[in-house]
Amino acid sequence: LDQAALAAAWSRQASLTKPPGSLGRLEDLAAQLSGIAGTCPPPRPLPAVVGVFAGDHGVVAEGVTPWPSEVTAQMVGNFLHGGAAVNVLARRVGAEVLVVDVGVAGALPAGAGLVRAKVRPGTANLAEGPAMTVEEATAALDVGAALASRLAEAGAACLLTGDMGIGNTTPSACLVAALTGLPAERVTGRGTGVDDERLARKQAVVAEAVRRLPADASALEVLASVGGLEIAALAGYVVGAAAARRPVLLDGVIAVAAALVAVALAPACRDYLVAGHRSVEPGAGAGLEHLGLTPLIDLDLRLGEGSGACLALPVLDAAASLLAEMATFEGAGVAQGPLA
Amino acid sequence: LDQAALAAAWSRQASLTKPPGSLGRLEDLAAQLSGIAGTCPPPRPLPAVVGVFAGDHGVVAEGVTPWPSEVTAQMVGNFLHGGAAVNVLARRVGAEVLVVDVGVAGALPAGAGLVRAKVRPGTANLAEGPAMTVEEATAALDVGAALASRLAEAGAACLLTGDMGIGNTTPSACLVAALTGLPAERVTGRGTGVDDERLARKQAVVAEAVRRLPADASALEVLASVGGLEIAALAGYVVGAAAARRPVLLDGVIAVAAALVAVALAPACRDYLVAGHRSVEPGAGAGLEHLGLTPLIDLDLRLGEGSGACLALPVLDAAASLLAEMATFEGAGVAQGPLA
Repeated sequence: LDQAALAAAWSRQASLTKPPGSLGRLEDLAAQLSGIAGTCPPPRPLPAVVGVFAGDHGVVAEGVTPWPSEVTAQMVGNFLHGGAAVNVLARRVGAEVLVVDVGVAGALPAGAGLVRAKVRPGTANLAEGPAMTVEEATAALDVGAALASRLAEAGAACLLTGDMGIGNTTPSACLVAALTGLPAERVTGRGTGVDDERLARKQAVVAEAVRRLPADASALEVLASVGGLEIAALAGYVVGAAAARRPVLLDGVIAVAAALVAVALAPACRDYLVAGHRSVEPGAGAGLEHLGLTPLIDLDLRLGEGSGACLALPVLDAAASLLAEMATFEGAGVAQGPLA
Repeated sequence: LDQAALAAAWSRQASLTKPPGSLGRLEDLAAQLSGIAGTCPPPRPLPAVVGVFAGDHGVVAEGVTPWPSEVTAQMVGNFLHGGAAVNVLARRVGAEVLVVDVGVAGALPAGAGLVRAKVRPGTANLAEGPAMTVEEATAALDVGAALASRLAEAGAACLLTGDMGIGNTTPSACLVAALTGLPAERVTGRGTGVDDERLARKQAVVAEAVRRLPADASALEVLASVGGLEIAALAGYVVGAAAARRPVLLDGVIAVAAALVAVALAPACRDYLVAGHRSVEPGAGAGLEHLGLTPLIDLDLRLGEGSGACLALPVLDAAASLLAEMATFEGAGVAQGPLA
């Protein structure tokens, strides 16, 4: 991050008409945004884009979710028609939704806002072998990185992560376990809401997949073995956004898994991350802690799609706007009490 | 609350294209908003108004804050010029700021957006005797109630609480202690940021003021004895908003103290309250717990003015919008997995 801009942000914050530190975490956030942009005050995080990366998962054959894989394509259709939660939330906060097919198994409807970049129609079953090849994982990473780069060039000031993929909390749990070293039971949750029996099965699948990984596996190899196409693309999207000096607003556990991969591949990404919310899914909180990130919103969401990231965008905008628009003590003729 | 609208909200929520319960607390919020409005889906909480009630406090003479009372009037000037934090945040979320002088001691500048309703120029020192008379407290309550009623009639869909008053975390702590029964040390904090010595003095002032209250004092008598003019007006504003069936979005400890008074005076108010955020000030969290409210935002703010309420308004809007605008499983042609 730009150290001069960071310092300028803290110095400006101290001149604003409020008790020192009284804006709490908004002050840290404003400094981070300044450091990312290299300017103080930082630009507002608008226009913003939610990249909703979609892919299917062979591991669904293990019964880790009650939803059939067909729902991935059906939900992509719902996104394209503006009817999903992420569409409503994005509209409200002024963000654009861009759906990226990086690995949907089923046939997709035509529709504006769909980026067609399918690497393969769903992963293989990670319970039986690698979810994809290293070449496929790399191709998916490239899809995300190229999109982030293109969006930044087109003027996007903030990139939000989104996802759609029936079964994708299972590969996410695998990645969180593998990259944090935490046990499978600790980071594997109920996803969209499975019962105790399915949860036990899911935890066993995650534990076994992680156990199978070679001790010296690289982050890329881990991603290919137990990840997902949309997760790989999201990891690339994070790397691409950081390279373009744009803040990345993370959604839930899928985004956190992708961020762990991105930071393992390119540690400098870390400073560009903002944790949008704390998902109910335990791998999200565990992964954020590993990354040293504290989420902005904590409202028991477990939907994904980018919903939690959208909810947090106004907080980011508030942080940037306060630093840019508040009056100073001198300018407003207000006595600076504690210094008197 | 309207039970039919509440039931309709939960029923509609179950038909939307998402796993059941996956929107977490946004689902509870949408139901509450439906119950308040008596319609499902509920109206969006816009237009919204932040009522920033301003008053001064005789207890400043006890050294409970390092800021001089003159800053109250200076900050009112800042509000009228749009330079304070609450102005920036209200602009961002589409709320109007209305400043109400219910008890500022100093001379105030002319300015659009200022409601002149001074009951008296600051309270008496609550460390030496009652802060105001019961008649004055009643007059301040009436100012707030009348404003809420007028704003609701003029079309405000949501009322946010705001405040300005150097020293006002001290009467707030008194009210929280008196109305929850918690000890003074537990609910008295550093306000805008006092040092250990001032904090000890402040806690002693609060403990002594609460000790002095007659055991059988009514909520109105407690308010008059240890409250503040802007806090009384805020309590009236809460009662008036609830009477007009509008949701009230609470800010920090001043708002929580006012809400405790409002609920003591008119228990039905409780269902119309939404806790905007958890202030760092300990009385805020303690009072919210007593009221059975869980805050939407928790970002270590301790500024007041209505800043935390403004930050939470987009969350309220999101909850209402999701229930109103999301597609249903049937409408979007998405398979309802777990029910299959």
